[in-house]
Amino acid sequence: MIAVLRHGTNEKQIQSLTSWLRAQGIDVHISKGSQHTVIGLIGDTSKIDADLLESLDIVDSVKRISVPFKSANRKFHPDDTVIKVGDTSVGGDVFTLIAGPCSVESMEQVGEIAKSVKASGATMLRGGAFKPRTSPYDFQGLKADGIEMLLEAKKQTGLPIVTEIMNANHLPLFEVVDVIQVGARNMQNFELLKELGRTKKTILIKRGLANTLKELLMSAEYVMAGGNENIILCERGIRTFETYTRNTLDLSAVPMLQELTHLPVIIDPSHATGVAKLVKPMAMAAAASGADGLMIEVHNDPAHALCDGAQSLTPEAFDELARAVRRVVEAVKEI
Amino acid sequence: MIAVLRHGTNEKQIQSLTSWLRAQGIDVHISKGSQHTVIGLIGDTSKIDADLLESLDIVDSVKRISVPFKSANRKFHPDDTVIKVGDTSVGGDVFTLIAGPCSVESMEQVGEIAKSVKASGATMLRGGAFKPRTSPYDFQGLKADGIEMLLEAKKQTGLPIVTEIMNANHLPLFEVVDVIQVGARNMQNFELLKELGRTKKTILIKRGLANTLKELLMSAEYVMAGGNENIILCERGIRTFETYTRNTLDLSAVPMLQELTHLPVIIDPSHATGVAKLVKPMAMAAAASGADGLMIEVHNDPAHALCDGAQSLTPEAFDELARAVRRVVEAVKEI
Amino acid sequence: MIAVLRHGTNEKQIQSLTSWLRAQGIDVHISKGSQHTVIGLIGDTSKIDADLLESLDIVDSVKRISVPFKSANRKFHPDDTVIKVGDTSVGGDVFTLIAGPCSVESMEQVGEIAKSVKASGATMLRGGAFKPRTSPYDFQGLKADGIEMLLEAKKQTGLPIVTEIMNANHLPLFEVVDVIQVGARNMQNFELLKELGRTKKTILIKRGLANTLKELLMSAEYVMAGGNENIILCERGIRTFETYTRNTLDLSAVPMLQELTHLPVIIDPSHATGVAKLVKPMAMAAAASGADGLMIEVHNDPAHALCDGAQSLTPEAFDELARAVRRVVEAVKEI
Amino acid sequence: MIAVLRHGTNEKQIQSLTSWLRAQGIDVHISKGSQHTVIGLIGDTSKIDADLLESLDIVDSVKRISVPFKSANRKFHPDDTVIKVGDTSVGGDVFTLIAGPCSVESMEQVGEIAKSVKASGATMLRGGAFKPRTSPYDFQGLKADGIEMLLEAKKQTGLPIVTEIMNANHLPLFEVVDVIQVGARNMQNFELLKELGRTKKTILIKRGLANTLKELLMSAEYVMAGGNENIILCERGIRTFETYTRNTLDLSAVPMLQELTHLPVIIDPSHATGVAKLVKPMAMAAAASGADGLMIEVHNDPAHALCDGAQSLTPEAFDELARAVRRVVEAVKEI
Repeated sequence: MIAVLRHGTNEKQIQSLTSWLRAQGIDVHISKGSQHTVIGLIGDTSKIDADLLESLDIVDSVKRISVPFKSANRKFHPDDTVIKVGDTSVGGDVFTLIAGPCSVESMEQVGEIAKSVKASGATMLRGGAFKPRTSPYDFQGLKADGIEMLLEAKKQTGLPIVTEIMNANHLPLFEVVDVIQVGARNMQNFELLKELGRTKKTILIKRGLANTLKELLMSAEYVMAGGNENIILCERGIRTFETYTRNTLDLSAVPMLQELTHLPVIIDPSHATGVAKLVKPMAMAAAASGADGLMIEVHNDPAHALCDGAQSLTPEAFDELARAVRRVVEAVKEI
Repeated sequence: MIAVLRHGTNEKQIQSLTSWLRAQGIDVHISKGSQHTVIGLIGDTSKIDADLLESLDIVDSVKRISVPFKSANRKFHPDDTVIKVGDTSVGGDVFTLIAGPCSVESMEQVGEIAKSVKASGATMLRGGAFKPRTSPYDFQGLKADGIEMLLEAKKQTGLPIVTEIMNANHLPLFEVVDVIQVGARNMQNFELLKELGRTKKTILIKRGLANTLKELLMSAEYVMAGGNENIILCERGIRTFETYTRNTLDLSAVPMLQELTHLPVIIDPSHATGVAKLVKPMAMAAAASGADGLMIEVHNDPAHALCDGAQSLTPEAFDELARAVRRVVEAVKEI
Repeated sequence: MIAVLRHGTNEKQIQSLTSWLRAQGIDVHISKGSQHTVIGLIGDTSKIDADLLESLDIVDSVKRISVPFKSANRKFHPDDTVIKVGDTSVGGDVFTLIAGPCSVESMEQVGEIAKSVKASGATMLRGGAFKPRTSPYDFQGLKADGIEMLLEAKKQTGLPIVTEIMNANHLPLFEVVDVIQVGARNMQNFELLKELGRTKKTILIKRGLANTLKELLMSAEYVMAGGNENIILCERGIRTFETYTRNTLDLSAVPMLQELTHLPVIIDPSHATGVAKLVKPMAMAAAASGADGLMIEVHNDPAHALCDGAQSLTPEAFDELARAVRRVVEAVKEI
Repeated sequence: MIAVLRHGTNEKQIQSLTSWLRAQGIDVHISKGSQHTVIGLIGDTSKIDADLLESLDIVDSVKRISVPFKSANRKFHPDDTVIKVGDTSVGGDVFTLIAGPCSVESMEQVGEIAKSVKASGATMLRGGAFKPRTSPYDFQGLKADGIEMLLEAKKQTGLPIVTEIMNANHLPLFEVVDVIQVGARNMQNFELLKELGRTKKTILIKRGLANTLKELLMSAEYVMAGGNENIILCERGIRTFETYTRNTLDLSAVPMLQELTHLPVIIDPSHATGVAKLVKPMAMAAAASGADGLMIEVHNDPAHALCDGAQSLTPEAFDELARAVRRVVEAVKEI
């Protein structure tokens, strides 16, 4: 960590600051420029509050050199993390294709979709049982019954299941789930993250609508700090001023995250765009950018879906998407 | 709700759509323009999914006419809501001044600050016992002990206390708290909001970093739908591209919310700016904009605060702020 | 255009509004719902100011049905526009690869880069002669001399040249340029756009940092309204809260624009990310999303470039990128 | 400027970098930490491209210590700048109230509004003669005739006039104008700024929709670098995700800019909110925040205004606003 002192700071002030730092076990290196004195903090600076330091009268600005995430950091874990999920895995050379309805609505619905997406090449089944809805008057999901139906669909197809948790108290219900999803709105629900860190389940964390990549990694760090290193990251669009699309898909997150972390990164183009006809081109772009997989909303009857119909694909459209994505994945592998 | 149909839609398609709508109890009014046919949906359209409707092939776009919040809506509740909190109240003609440390650190600290802010005119004491921190390695608060210390400070000064909840399981600990705060990161933690709707406590909801005013009102609606109408709204800055300030304080939220809802609206200029010397001018501006109150971070020793030191005021600076704000509040009343 | 009237509007007010509208040549269709009366405006509503209408006391909200751009609108021009540039063309089945230095620095530099990018498959040469710099103290470009050097490089390689204009008074210097670029900061310099509309040159318009796709299309419309329909659109990243990348590349702009307009759309991943190692994955993603081409910064000695060195590729890195992109373009064609 | 080197950088690489820096006249100070070596650059670093330095393989990150603006910097010019405009002035102890129509439409209109806003206490008259409109089909202003009418209104009332320039070629027409406005869309039209730097006119620069405060100051610097130091800065709302208001007024810009620069700062709440009933509370808030003045849109017949009617006040509403603002300004002075 580096602290740049204000112009005009005197010797006594500098000494007072450095002795305060040394009292906290930090070694100090002073460097005087023509206009500014710069203090280098050497040692374990993770306990030093940069904002506090910057608030001191004599300090102009502070710069943290080392990144604040450790377990998620590729520097200390250079190899890609590959996570086993049932008979399949996520990360490394595998391209993961997760598909299914926004909400589980009935056994018939989820069973039919599961069979169809499996036939098209999906490797996991997604479906919402507990649904985060902006309005308290909107459909909130089938809850425990929804998880039962997902389980039955898994039995029928062999596809591992992914579903969202909204409350740590529901964890016993999620024992049977293969991948537990933390939604964008809960990305910084730190209490939930801590609870998930105490399990051994695979956790898929979605980036919040206004969260930086660094904050996403810090949320992964919350789970990992608890001992659970089975994390999948998911970019699903951030909030900007553009209104033609529901959110703005930040695809540069893929190579950027892959440089910063060893965890797998997947893309959800359905929520990112909110527009069915943009899902296929964005899925292809995600594959070309090097993403480890995709998460796609599929509905057998979009016109009657209970939520998010606007961005769901029909099974036929998903089949086309899956074929196109496979072609791109193959082309990228050959490069 | 209005649906604009695509150019070229034929009679049969229109009939199919209208009979589907009528089957859902919606009356339909058709109006043909030179280029577009427009369908007006009459009746209870709250169950109609606008996104789904817009996703249909023959529909160009959809516009919702009625707002989706009801209990929070000023239309159905024209008078300002005034909430009793201990011997004081929030909303209406009262100007509320909440002050205290970011984190409760010790009895000595919180007791001293409580006395000092009371002397300056604060009407409530704030202090964090459970702290949402971006990093799992940062100080997470004194928890139950912190609440005990706030209670003791309340006993010493008579000031009602405000503190943040992060987990509905902690509710029993919050029985003794006067105002329960939902932080920006939990604004869309719908499970928590539902639980708070089942209590009778006063709930202060902070706007999320990337949440619209409509979403803030929908989160209030979650609590109110459960039967708890004691809600205070708080604007605390939104996330933008500007980097000189931590967030961008959206003061136009004050008059805008006051038109949309009857609930009291307060401003937190400390978190909004993240810079101590901007707190006073923004507090004065908030008072002039018509806000019902302020929430200010005060620390007796900012240089040693365990969190958010950069934006905390000394007791002396808070005293100056309180005096300046009072002058503005008086001037505004005379207008 | 549709105007929703406020609840409680009386007959006399409605009549006053409709006669005012009819006086402006607009036919009016009234539809009364249970809660709201809705007025449909029929005829040429392009002269009606929606904001003004919405500001009237009795009007709750207004919705424009028809889009405000005409010449750029795919509805009235369903086929892709293909623009001839020298011996090559942009749009349709062609994939355009524009490459070159951020700034032209010397004949040696630009000549060398031109030969090298041509060998790697570039179809046009880019290079800045007039440079928009945030600081008046930064290098502002070689100006007329820079254009001379680009021309000489064109003579040596046959590559058509693309360079940015900042002032309509410089137009005579740009007579010899193949494609005139309007930079992001000048996207809404309407006076410049009007002047370019009076020429017959091909104009490449970059999306502004905070401009919507609709505004980008309106800027194209400014040029087209003057009679010049040779427009290429370019997405180059928008400004968001994320700081790891300089801007956020909005790749969903590609399929979205291709639905809205017949004009070709290219991507500039160099400026969008500001980070050299993200350029190749984003270029591949752009190709997979269906973009009509790419614009890439290449420097023979990035460590000594006079501007934007951080995002420039070496000729070797560009060669690799070009090969990878070609593979993706082929894979996409087969889909 | 400080450069943090990557972990693992060897002596030879460091020497190569430092001798390159020294060749550019920069003195170098090396400080080795446990994990990182840090290089301090001493001397005139304004010519060093931070992005380029950061792009070098051995450099992890770079931090600029000194700010890049000089003439606008309060450090080198501690006293407030006060600008004489006709018989009035802007900055220092004066509170400036600029009012008038969005567009000049007729002599009758502008004359009537000028008299009325003067009676309410306005100290300058604003009015658009050249109008930047998103659509080429919208009203573009009365141009030279509009300026004539403003002049006549000045003759009638004695109010100095403010109007927007869009093209440096129009400068001769602006000789008679008291304050030349650079609109938000032209804030980074560097060619225009340079031309204005060659005049002695007072220039009012509006912050761009997506521009940081630092960029606003750099644009002021462009004019000042040419020798013209008569600059007024104006915050008029930035673009965010919120849709209830047209833009988000960033009032913290007032105290922040006042710390960074000696130039006067005014607020335009009309364009910032786009909603007439938010203008008065935001004007009061601006006054309380310490702004040097306001710029307000007033129309004698908002329902027939040719542009931006939604945000214009009637003369009566402006009179009320002016009175309220005066009360706040007085209250603030006494603090």
